[in-house]
Amino acid sequence: MPGNSRAAGTHHSRPSSSEEPPDLEDQELLLAAAYVSDAQYNRNVPFETSPQAIRLYHFYNHWTMRAATYFFIWVNLALALFEEPAVFPLPFLVTSIAEVLCLTAFFGRLVHFAKVTPQKVFWKDTKNICVMVTIVLTLIDLVIYGSLEAVNIRGVRWSRALRPVFLINFPESRQIRRTFRSIRNTLPDILYVFLLFLFSMMIFSLMALKLFGDRDLRTVEGSPYFTNILDIAFELYVLVTTANSPDVMMPAYELNWWYSLYFITYIIINTYIFMSVFLAVIYNNYRKHLKNEIHTLAYLKHHKMTEAFNILKVKVGTEFVVKEARWRRLVKVVAPDVSSSHLELLLRISDEGQKGHVDKVNFLRLADLLNIRVVAINIKKHPLETWMPRVYQSSTSLLVQKMVQHRIFVWVYDVIILINAIFIALDEKDSLISYAEWLFLSLYIIEILLKLYTYEPSAYFGRKQFWNWFDTLIIIAALLATVANTTIQARKYNSQQVLDIVLILRILRLLRVIVSIQRFRVIVTTLINIGPTMLTFGGLVLVVYYAFAIIGMEVFHGKIHFLDPGSGSPDALVCGNPALKDSAFAQGRYCKNNFNDLASSLILLTELTVVNQWHILADGFALVTHQAAKLYFIGFHVVVVILIVNIFIAFILEAFFVAYSLEKSEVETAIEKKIQELGVGVQEEEVQDGGLIDNMDAKDSGFSADEGDNKKKDLKGLYFRIASKSKF
Amino acid sequence: MPGNSRAAGTHHSRPSSSEEPPDLEDQELLLAAAYVSDAQYNRNVPFETSPQAIRLYHFYNHWTMRAATYFFIWVNLALALFEEPAVFPLPFLVTSIAEVLCLTAFFGRLVHFAKVTPQKVFWKDTKNICVMVTIVLTLIDLVIYGSLEAVNIRGVRWSRALRPVFLINFPESRQIRRTFRSIRNTLPDILYVFLLFLFSMMIFSLMALKLFGDRDLRTVEGSPYFTNILDIAFELYVLVTTANSPDVMMPAYELNWWYSLYFITYIIINTYIFMSVFLAVIYNNYRKHLKNEIHTLAYLKHHKMTEAFNILKVKVGTEFVVKEARWRRLVKVVAPDVSSSHLELLLRISDEGQKGHVDKVNFLRLADLLNIRVVAINIKKHPLETWMPRVYQSSTSLLVQKMVQHRIFVWVYDVIILINAIFIALDEKDSLISYAEWLFLSLYIIEILLKLYTYEPSAYFGRKQFWNWFDTLIIIAALLATVANTTIQARKYNSQQVLDIVLILRILRLLRVIVSIQRFRVIVTTLINIGPTMLTFGGLVLVVYYAFAIIGMEVFHGKIHFLDPGSGSPDALVCGNPALKDSAFAQGRYCKNNFNDLASSLILLTELTVVNQWHILADGFALVTHQAAKLYFIGFHVVVVILIVNIFIAFILEAFFVAYSLEKSEVETAIEKKIQELGVGVQEEEVQDGGLIDNMDAKDSGFSADEGDNKKKDLKGLYFRIASKSKF
Repeated sequence: MPGNSRAAGTHHSRPSSSEEPPDLEDQELLLAAAYVSDAQYNRNVPFETSPQAIRLYHFYNHWTMRAATYFFIWVNLALALFEEPAVFPLPFLVTSIAEVLCLTAFFGRLVHFAKVTPQKVFWKDTKNICVMVTIVLTLIDLVIYGSLEAVNIRGVRWSRALRPVFLINFPESRQIRRTFRSIRNTLPDILYVFLLFLFSMMIFSLMALKLFGDRDLRTVEGSPYFTNILDIAFELYVLVTTANSPDVMMPAYELNWWYSLYFITYIIINTYIFMSVFLAVIYNNYRKHLKNEIHTLAYLKHHKMTEAFNILKVKVGTEFVVKEARWRRLVKVVAPDVSSSHLELLLRISDEGQKGHVDKVNFLRLADLLNIRVVAINIKKHPLETWMPRVYQSSTSLLVQKMVQHRIFVWVYDVIILINAIFIALDEKDSLISYAEWLFLSLYIIEILLKLYTYEPSAYFGRKQFWNWFDTLIIIAALLATVANTTIQARKYNSQQVLDIVLILRILRLLRVIVSIQRFRVIVTTLINIGPTMLTFGGLVLVVYYAFAIIGMEVFHGKIHFLDPGSGSPDALVCGNPALKDSAFAQGRYCKNNFNDLASSLILLTELTVVNQWHILADGFALVTHQAAKLYFIGFHVVVVILIVNIFIAFILEAFFVAYSLEKSEVETAIEKKIQELGVGVQEEEVQDGGLIDNMDAKDSGFSADEGDNKKKDLKGLYFRIASKSKF
Repeated sequence: MPGNSRAAGTHHSRPSSSEEPPDLEDQELLLAAAYVSDAQYNRNVPFETSPQAIRLYHFYNHWTMRAATYFFIWVNLALALFEEPAVFPLPFLVTSIAEVLCLTAFFGRLVHFAKVTPQKVFWKDTKNICVMVTIVLTLIDLVIYGSLEAVNIRGVRWSRALRPVFLINFPESRQIRRTFRSIRNTLPDILYVFLLFLFSMMIFSLMALKLFGDRDLRTVEGSPYFTNILDIAFELYVLVTTANSPDVMMPAYELNWWYSLYFITYIIINTYIFMSVFLAVIYNNYRKHLKNEIHTLAYLKHHKMTEAFNILKVKVGTEFVVKEARWRRLVKVVAPDVSSSHLELLLRISDEGQKGHVDKVNFLRLADLLNIRVVAINIKKHPLETWMPRVYQSSTSLLVQKMVQHRIFVWVYDVIILINAIFIALDEKDSLISYAEWLFLSLYIIEILLKLYTYEPSAYFGRKQFWNWFDTLIIIAALLATVANTTIQARKYNSQQVLDIVLILRILRLLRVIVSIQRFRVIVTTLINIGPTMLTFGGLVLVVYYAFAIIGMEVFHGKIHFLDPGSGSPDALVCGNPALKDSAFAQGRYCKNNFNDLASSLILLTELTVVNQWHILADGFALVTHQAAKLYFIGFHVVVVILIVNIFIAFILEAFFVAYSLEKSEVETAIEKKIQELGVGVQEEEVQDGGLIDNMDAKDSGFSADEGDNKKKDLKGLYFRIASKSKF
């Protein structure tokens, strides 16, 4: 979108004098703030620069507006839960009114966007056209379906498959669109590999037909083996997914062991080599694409920051700069929730010489500076120390503190957790074990209290002290769960779901072991760090799943029913459909795997993604409809397993390589250097090792020693560290 | 091994005068040739520099010696086919004599090596110690087994599992050792991820026990569902491999669809995320390791080439150089089969100024230069043109040539192949179709003849014209196959295997389509280029498979038998073992999957590598022996699927990235520049497009035009191109 941005640039025409009337100042600042904010969040929305439009644009980007849009998108998607075939049925009138409401909201959002962006750009953007067309199509579909309903004819709600369009096409979903673009760019390369793969499959199918077709072999189920070229092709496609190995080979293998070589060759070529080549092609494109995107984003960021600088600049001496006061106001507008000490740190970094203004090079870094989470650590004395210094500093108290900080304390609790795990595994109906439960809980609570006694509470529960929060929340949850459990048992009240949640919470408590083993914590931290991007994948998968689920529901709805096998009805054994008699589908008791509502459909699609036994599911649905139904399942496999899962793997690989390569970005290093220079740094390792407070105290005393230092004085009692990604 | 090489360097002590007696010359040359050859093939064997040792070293590296070693290694490995439990049984005396013979050969090779390498180095090298210990252990095992046999007690031939040691530990198997090293280096990183993975599995097992253990649920087979923590852990491990999805979830899912969320969460965390992390960790280590290896190899190569230079150098003016005559002799010794025109080209590149000597920088490049395959293309007139120019240049003849060179000619034959495929798919008993077979064959032969008429035969069948060879060989094979087929049918002789091979050859003919589609050809070329390294993997897999197969045969031999199900015996339904009654193993007719001989074992291990249904196989063998047998199968999964398959994927990814990144090496570019400078270059694209001869002719005429050019004259009628890897 460099084009778009440049369009925005040309639309912006401003008198470039350095002396402006003060009433203009606010608008200028808002405009500059919009540029900086766009640079910070990598937004590439071209907007009008009239004061009216800028104000609207700020409002457009406000989190409430974005949240509202997402809310309506989710409501719209969730409607499928309530529409026929429904998990929780609601009358058509209710769901259609809800849908119209959502469409209105989307339309409103679009109108808002149209007021912000230049008309030309708006009408050239496929995203907006897509949303409008989808709104219109959905309305048409609603009207047709409603009228048919009125005369009691059941129509097809085809427009429901289009709902993910809203999720993709609002400017907020840049990440998902990027992944889709990445898939689209990969397609040409993939296509030829796929064709070659199909060709190889065809050659092997022909061979199988010639080798085994005339032998009168039978499969385990007693059906003819490899006699029809289409069946063979399907079986061999299934073999690529490994789902029918080794069954597909057994009849030939029983005839002569040489024939197994045919299958082994097939598997090596098609399953191992071709599937790896798919991954290689996709990964390669993903990397290439990623690199291009990063270059473009960097260019656009620089461009936007330059725009902002040009608005705010004032000539001092020979160079243009931004005055400190104006810079402060800008940051306050862009990031209203930044703390004053953080602001001070940023200013120190940007205005190195303390000259009262920020030069261009430093100004351009602002967007990156704002993106780096800097943790401000307040160093205070322990409240108990303030309230009763004598008791807190007594030798017993100090001994307790030393004990808590000791490694053995951690080990002891690891052993306790282990014993706890064994007790959970044992039967809890024994009253002794039920008492033990309380014992363990009290031990855990004592641990937390001891830690709070030793460490300063507000530091222990600092905003970024993820692991401490994790630890405490798990114990509180377990406490609540155990209390709830006892209450329920006492009242003979039996809510299965509450009981289940209680059980899960009690077991999750064991996760605390992760906290105390450094290597585990690091792996988990890496996984958590890539979590947000993994959510993008969630979005992508949801879009594809939703479309496939809606199509599946329209095609296969009501063909297969789950009837309680306990009823003994013969129908229950064939899933309510005689066509399934003697099929592997019915024998495997797969009746619950159907397209009768959204939840079942999504679970079924998940099973198809896992691949195993997908051919039995496909066969089942082909039996109750038509053999062509297999195409739906093959299509799903190609799209989800070959494309999306491989992109997911590519993404994890890349994310881990970045995590491995340890390097902090240039700007991060600059900040860190500054933090160290100012003498207010804390080493990450020290914080991670739990020795935070220890270290704090030591530094604090050192601090008071050379109080004369002017620089340090301003930021006294505050320490900073970069909340960067952890390393292995 | 930098240490080793340096050791060789210090052992080499030579008078460094530039004027040597002529009788020393030969030995000097041999020594230098040994260094250059080692550098060329990246051998890092420290050797003595006495004339005797050098001669022995040259002999040691001679291809016959290497081939003989490999021959004995393979014979040794193949012995498992003939030993109890045997595919082709031979008496113990025969196999033991063969084994002793192999051991003698290995010992001989080792003694040879000991004579070449310095004693100190020899005894410090674990490889040599390994081989010696294995030889001794095998002899001991043979003696014990033989004596027990003599008194009719069946012993365990445990030393057979050690046989792959020979494959790994001879200096020829550098590649396999490198891969093993790469695995070993990965282990520490993998270990923590694996432990965390086991921990997560344990947590989920506990949850499953608590959630489903008391519900009296039953699996499809009617056995209790999730009641025992060990069973649950095994089931969940199987779920990570996806082999029991969705069966393992169905009973819980039937109870309430919420429970499917438990399984979906498990699959996302353990199957998708953890397995991707394994791949990421392995791939990352593979890349890192590869980089280090390349650096070391480059250093060692430089070192060896410097040694060689120091031996041959003569002072000319201010700098040391190697005289042209000596350089020529060296190359002749190092690469005896290099053509004189190729030698000339190399000299031109190395001696740029044509000063009659090669300077140090250019000399050091020699090893790389020799490694680059340069294709010398002889440009001759078509023999027919020489023999009967008038007929060959007649308008009819030219029309034919033009037609053959036209794109439509290729397309027509693609259509013919397609029709052929359809005919093959149809039943061949129809006599019309049987005649059509001959028609197709004659069409293909006409095509080849037409091509030979149009293109110069010796260029068409040039050494590197892979695709032309491929095309012709396939048609010849098909011709032979069809003739054989007809003969067999005419004589009513019925050898199934001959018939099968005939069938396969006829179908392989369809592969010709690949030749005519450029993108297909490129993908296949890339795959063929990584073929040699893929063979390394073959070696690696063989080593692991062999060890597991031998262990499997010792443990599970004779427990499961395949009996012809046609016999109707009840034993045949339970694979001859009543313990398998009603098991999924027997119901799936898996009796042929057993450890009763080496071939069956290897096929079974392949099935385990493919993963699907491995739990049923594991269950079957656990039923006929002990539940602990599952550990064998889990161990195999961890080693082969988690480690080796991921390394294979890492290797394919890396190979494709290299193929994608298109860059030729520095030396390749230098050669290419020189070829172009000399005016004897051919563009790769032109050759690939089949327009080779056209282009040749055009250049040839241009060539005669400026015959005066001295440089070109020498190499007249010869063109070169770099036979580098193809690009996408």
